Amino acid sequence: MPAPRPSSDQVDDLVARAREGQARAVARLISLVEDESPALRQVSSALAPHTGRAHVVGLTGSPGVGKSTSTAALVTALREAGKTVGVLAVDPSSPFSGGALLGDRVRMGEHATDERVYIRSMASRGHLGGLSWATPQALRVLDAAGCDVILVETVGVGQSEVEVAGLADTTLVLLAPGMGDGIQAAKAGILEVGDVFVINKADRDGAQSTRRELRSVIAMADRVEDAWKPPIVLTVATRGEGVAEVVEEIENHRVHLVSGEGLRTRRLARTRREIEAIALASVQQRFAHVSGDARLGDLAAQVLAGESDPFAAADTLVASL
Amino acid sequence: MPAPRPSSDQVDDLVARAREGQARAVARLISLVEDESPALRQVSSALAPHTGRAHVVGLTGSPGVGKSTSTAALVTALREAGKTVGVLAVDPSSPFSGGALLGDRVRMGEHATDERVYIRSMASRGHLGGLSWATPQALRVLDAAGCDVILVETVGVGQSEVEVAGLADTTLVLLAPGMGDGIQAAKAGILEVGDVFVINKADRDGAQSTRRELRSVIAMADRVEDAWKPPIVLTVATRGEGVAEVVEEIENHRVHLVSGEGLRTRRLARTRREIEAIALASVQQRFAHVSGDARLGDLAAQVLAGESDPFAAADTLVASL
Repeated sequence: MPAPRPSSDQVDDLVARAREGQARAVARLISLVEDESPALRQVSSALAPHTGRAHVVGLTGSPGVGKSTSTAALVTALREAGKTVGVLAVDPSSPFSGGALLGDRVRMGEHATDERVYIRSMASRGHLGGLSWATPQALRVLDAAGCDVILVETVGVGQSEVEVAGLADTTLVLLAPGMGDGIQAAKAGILEVGDVFVINKADRDGAQSTRRELRSVIAMADRVEDAWKPPIVLTVATRGEGVAEVVEEIENHRVHLVSGEGLRTRRLARTRREIEAIALASVQQRFAHVSGDARLGDLAAQVLAGESDPFAAADTLVASL
Repeated sequence: MPAPRPSSDQVDDLVARAREGQARAVARLISLVEDESPALRQVSSALAPHTGRAHVVGLTGSPGVGKSTSTAALVTALREAGKTVGVLAVDPSSPFSGGALLGDRVRMGEHATDERVYIRSMASRGHLGGLSWATPQALRVLDAAGCDVILVETVGVGQSEVEVAGLADTTLVLLAPGMGDGIQAAKAGILEVGDVFVINKADRDGAQSTRRELRSVIAMADRVEDAWKPPIVLTVATRGEGVAEVVEEIENHRVHLVSGEGLRTRRLARTRREIEAIALASVQQRFAHVSGDARLGDLAAQVLAGESDPFAAADTLVASL
């Protein structure tokens, strides 16, 4: 059962308390956006003037490379540097259950009592656009709450790498030695989107050859932005080794983005996609409420009967708006 | 370079030749729909009266369970039963390259010279809705071409299992012994969508325990349609063992669907989604052409500046239609 819809004053109060760093207010606001509460628009409107400051870092990589451990290690390093940190762990692989299988979240336990760390697991609900829907709204909450850095860790596989890159200012791609990651990475398109590459578990055999292989495929990759040469960092996240260097490279990339139009370009593209996804979801909702001859069910029946085709039916549906 | 847009007469001629079973006409039509040719609407309209006969079978499962080999074995068995067969292999994991990494397609070589087998690899282009866009149109081509059965094999992982189920009349879920598939399957939601479960490589250790585990999780799964109890078939696809039984269970499921409202219900839902996806893509195209103050770029700049929020911007965009 969702909680009752908060009043306008209550939303303003929640935003004010979130901006003061009250973790419960942050959590409540994320719940409101994640549950697509009717208050969503109001929350978004109240947050708007207070966003745009946080640096969003996406973490992606195949299962088993140590994403959770790396996230925890990065949080430690960022906290030591005095940063306020937000963590969103998104599991887009579970469209049906609506719940994330995030048993390994317990590894974040050491940070659970730190008031300047906000940790949140989200399941993408199989909504139109998947990640593109609720996650940007949760990012806005953490941004308004004063996070300097927000880590977005995707638990899934497949297209989610690319989606998480679309949300991030800086995208970290994690690999591990000897997992055949070269071909995997090429297949998933993550070479095109990685800003910093991390070879975790670098104490294992094959770390150096993975680095060489990765370096040569990065050199060949058809990267959109050529001015930035993505560094490769070796880490052993379980022991915190190399993690300070990762933080340094994230900062280097941020400075690179800010020194040119890079940050604005990325954020404009991201905001366009966000607006578009919301607009499309709103249109889709209207489709469900079309009446008369242009009802979706009636159109589908006509297509099934061979009396119409899907494109003609779609034209009728759009014309009904 | 796409081929020049065919004339109206040429489209009608292609459809006529495809209906006569000319493989080149079938291939050309699939290219037209896959490339989103301007002739797409016309192709769809010309195909419409000739569709609805083929039984669509979706094949899904984790990498390594033997999907390609099973597909090839099923084609052999269906051909022996005198059926005309279409195969669509869809790779949704490659949004950037636009090309499928389907080296194992060569295993289908034995069927390459069979005139009653149409084989086609498709990459989903990262278009709105992924699989939901081009694949249904390719299915319509194969359907109109007289295929009795169309196998849709998804090469990817993650949500694609669920998407392929949305396209299929009957969904086959492939597993292999000892791959920890129980939890994997539960996570991906494929237990809810599988109509026939196949444990391939059943000559390996653990096939019986995988069957027991699967049976108990199926019994607990929250299935939409309770009247059908999904069977579990053991196969060794490389030797063709058990494949005839799979074909039999597909037929059993088809009869089950036809005996009630099941087939019509599934196809109505599928057609609704298809129409909706086309309509949304059309709306999205219009968004790109909005001018004046409601231009997407301008709206994004306002949101970035904190002067608007994404929901208000989306409202403006939708109102511009």
